[in-house]
Amino acid sequence: MSAYRSSEQYLGALARRAALPAGFCAANASLEFSPSEKPGTYPMNLSLILLDEPTTSFGACFTRNRFAGAPVLIGRRRLAEPRLRGVLINNKVANVGAASGVQDATAVLGELGGLLGSPERELLAASTGVIGWRLPAAAISAALPTLAAGLQRRSLLPVARAIMTTDSWPKLRRARVGQGAILGVAKGAGMIEPNVATMLVFLLTDLEIPRAALREELARAAEATFNRISVDSDQSTSDMVVAFSSRRKPAAPRAEFRRGLLEVCRGLAEDIVRNGEGVGHVMRVRVRGPQRTLSLGLAKAVVNSPLVKSAVFGNDPNVGRLLSSMGDYLGTAPGGSTVDFRRLRVAMGGTVLYEAGAFRLDSAKERRLARYLAACASDPAHKGYPAHERCVEIEVDWGGRGAQVVEVYGADLSYEYVRENADYRS
Amino acid sequence: MSAYRSSEQYLGALARRAALPAGFCAANASLEFSPSEKPGTYPMNLSLILLDEPTTSFGACFTRNRFAGAPVLIGRRRLAEPRLRGVLINNKVANVGAASGVQDATAVLGELGGLLGSPERELLAASTGVIGWRLPAAAISAALPTLAAGLQRRSLLPVARAIMTTDSWPKLRRARVGQGAILGVAKGAGMIEPNVATMLVFLLTDLEIPRAALREELARAAEATFNRISVDSDQSTSDMVVAFSSRRKPAAPRAEFRRGLLEVCRGLAEDIVRNGEGVGHVMRVRVRGPQRTLSLGLAKAVVNSPLVKSAVFGNDPNVGRLLSSMGDYLGTAPGGSTVDFRRLRVAMGGTVLYEAGAFRLDSAKERRLARYLAACASDPAHKGYPAHERCVEIEVDWGGRGAQVVEVYGADLSYEYVRENADYRS
Repeated sequence: MSAYRSSEQYLGALARRAALPAGFCAANASLEFSPSEKPGTYPMNLSLILLDEPTTSFGACFTRNRFAGAPVLIGRRRLAEPRLRGVLINNKVANVGAASGVQDATAVLGELGGLLGSPERELLAASTGVIGWRLPAAAISAALPTLAAGLQRRSLLPVARAIMTTDSWPKLRRARVGQGAILGVAKGAGMIEPNVATMLVFLLTDLEIPRAALREELARAAEATFNRISVDSDQSTSDMVVAFSSRRKPAAPRAEFRRGLLEVCRGLAEDIVRNGEGVGHVMRVRVRGPQRTLSLGLAKAVVNSPLVKSAVFGNDPNVGRLLSSMGDYLGTAPGGSTVDFRRLRVAMGGTVLYEAGAFRLDSAKERRLARYLAACASDPAHKGYPAHERCVEIEVDWGGRGAQVVEVYGADLSYEYVRENADYRS
Repeated sequence: MSAYRSSEQYLGALARRAALPAGFCAANASLEFSPSEKPGTYPMNLSLILLDEPTTSFGACFTRNRFAGAPVLIGRRRLAEPRLRGVLINNKVANVGAASGVQDATAVLGELGGLLGSPERELLAASTGVIGWRLPAAAISAALPTLAAGLQRRSLLPVARAIMTTDSWPKLRRARVGQGAILGVAKGAGMIEPNVATMLVFLLTDLEIPRAALREELARAAEATFNRISVDSDQSTSDMVVAFSSRRKPAAPRAEFRRGLLEVCRGLAEDIVRNGEGVGHVMRVRVRGPQRTLSLGLAKAVVNSPLVKSAVFGNDPNVGRLLSSMGDYLGTAPGGSTVDFRRLRVAMGGTVLYEAGAFRLDSAKERRLARYLAACASDPAHKGYPAHERCVEIEVDWGGRGAQVVEVYGADLSYEYVRENADYRS
């Protein structure tokens, strides 16, 4: 659990994590464009993550949103390619809902491939930003030579900064595994919910791992981390988690690779929630019970309830709303009637709030819990770096034999969230 | 579509609607209590709606929240009683989650029955307020003689005011049907979502109607109105919609009764959304399509998306978020893949935003829509009466033969919502 005192200190910590694994390079550049949809010019950042050689070992998870963006439509097809070499990322325009979206993105990738000596089909596109605007393909293409000329092997930190939209700090996590490393970078703030949402994650490793194994490990890690976070329960049109291996270092034992990938993904997932739009508190909800689907539903019901989220924002240990949100879910969930509220145990920060069919509250306990919540808070308007990495720990146990624990991350609901989302395009 | 200029003008309109149907009387009283859970004393309002004679013709719909309050547990059992005579309503304490909840409520009803000469089993309880606090049965019982002494036959308006919690104005609707009337009163603000949520609704009619017919009409009307509103997608522990007939007036034709009941319920449902905690805009989403369940899911996805709600609050005609919220729903809904986005048509305030696979926006249209949204707004901090009854009209058509229209009401997400819900108990 780290705490940071300044942006410089946080960026220093990231710089130490950011060294590119063997066989990767990266670049970024910026440009100005004039959307046809709105007067004025806007700045856009381009980022490129590139392998020295195309690799057979890559994988990706995409949003399940049916109104998916052009990069997602292209990316899904790319999964069948024999080899990929890298990904071009832009912010500001999500390239969603424009009739020519796939064509525009493909044209840009064709131009980039020409500069790099790679066919367009070996490149992925990733976009985040306003939905409905057309990708400014000509302006992007004009900036590609500068981008390609800036490729470097040192650090992923400039990319971590360039892919930000409403993010207020860059996000990088690293794990050492065997003789190599797994490095992950993420963009994401707001509109984050299970099933992967406006979240772009790129995972780079130099460890040898076959394609099938990489995809299996990626799916497993994403399910346990990126699909377990929720800022506002909306799943975006553009989310993707992409992994590449340059295969430059000897393979690590599978269990070690798994542990390393999970560590990186869990760190990034928590970073994404903490940096969610207007987030003041991060909630970590752990539900223990004999039936995993119901446990997961209970945890998500808690983190997605606007009333729970508002109460946590106000440092109000409102256990009534916790129980009501779970009761609401169970009232309509298949099998919900198997959960017996009299056997339910609910704790916050280690303090039992409800047990054996009754609230376990008194005013001294309530004051203590309010202080606990306040100590877990950050100022939602705080920018530049995470002040600390504390979570509001909520534990739910609905008992039973052979119970497993399911973990979900969520965020409070603050004035700042509303402000950012009411004003995003203005 | 009414507009009001003052609280007096609004209350005047309500006073004209509020005459009790034949065979009903009402009373209210206030008291102070000291909860064991928190220091200090708090005011509580009691209200009583009573029939002159017990009636066989009554019905009710209850929340589906599994963590239901004691009044709901008691009410469900009462449905099997041969006759009921009335309902006792309190605010401030929801009587949810206290181990002795049913016992406390039953004791109070027993006391009240003694005063009225009715058995306890002929009386319903309805409670709204803080979850987890114990019902102050002794303090309530002490106030019952004053309450019973205040019974009057004139107006339901005092009850409409007394049952309010965070509501900022009373809610009453009336329909004349045949030789009688249907009068409805509601309490509800925030935590309102389909399947009936902290919403108490009491429907009184003097029209003769058999129990089975009343229950059928009530279920039909509630499904089309109270189950189609959402302020914040949480379903409360305490919601109920109760109907009583005093059977004093001749039966009306069934179709007329249905129309009258629907009119009253629709008016109250819209009132509840408009008076939701911190609501600035009411959204009315109409979805037309060949499959009702998917249409309903699409409409709810729109009104429950925090990003859509925030954008509407900011008068931002963000059609990207509308489409993303629907795409999110369709990505996981059974049968969601049958909806073709290229056939989707989306309009706001009669202006087409998306059609034939592409956005239909330009900056002039965006400015016009922003003005339209601003004209539909009320100040969320406005108290005392609804300034107007305008809605943001969102229309979605996913085409197909034999299409039906489904209608859902929702609310924006404002700073004021967060403020009210962060501070509710303090």
